[in-house]
Amino acid sequence: MKFEVFVTLKKEVLDPQGKAVENALGDIGLNTIKNIRQGKYFTLEVNETDENKASDLVKSSCEKLLANQTIENFKFNKI
Amino acid sequence: MKFEVFVTLKKEVLDPQGKAVENALGDIGLNTIKNIRQGKYFTLEVNETDENKASDLVKSSCEKLLANQTIENFKFNKI
Repeated sequence: MKFEVFVTLKKEVLDPQGKAVENALGDIGLNTIKNIRQGKYFTLEVNETDENKASDLVKSSCEKLLANQTIENFKFNKI
Repeated sequence: MKFEVFVTLKKEVLDPQGKAVENALGDIGLNTIKNIRQGKYFTLEVNETDENKASDLVKSSCEKLLANQTIENFKFNKI
């Protein structure tokens, strides 16, 4: 069963990486693009046929490893 | 107008970062999760009211900066 996971910085957390991308886009003339925030995107496969159990495993992996919940949010979908 | 952009490694490209995450998940007992691939996820705002023009700008930013098309694919959606 395949899932996609999004890990994004909470909105009150500064994103210097996104800001750097925004500045770089400005430098190449794409200065109408603003408020860039960069996050992580994972695709993964769970070796589990029960969708609820698989979801629980993905949630657990987000909470324990993929996201730092102090500064990041996560969400995931079956794909 | 707000967009989300996904930048992922092409499937024939090795992903050592994803592999490291997979090993780390195994170490904490989540060994039913496999084939992890890590990509980038951006959210951004385009200061443009015409959706086609905004899409063109996002496409251009992907081609010129956000994605390395030798090894990466990109896709984007209006959100």
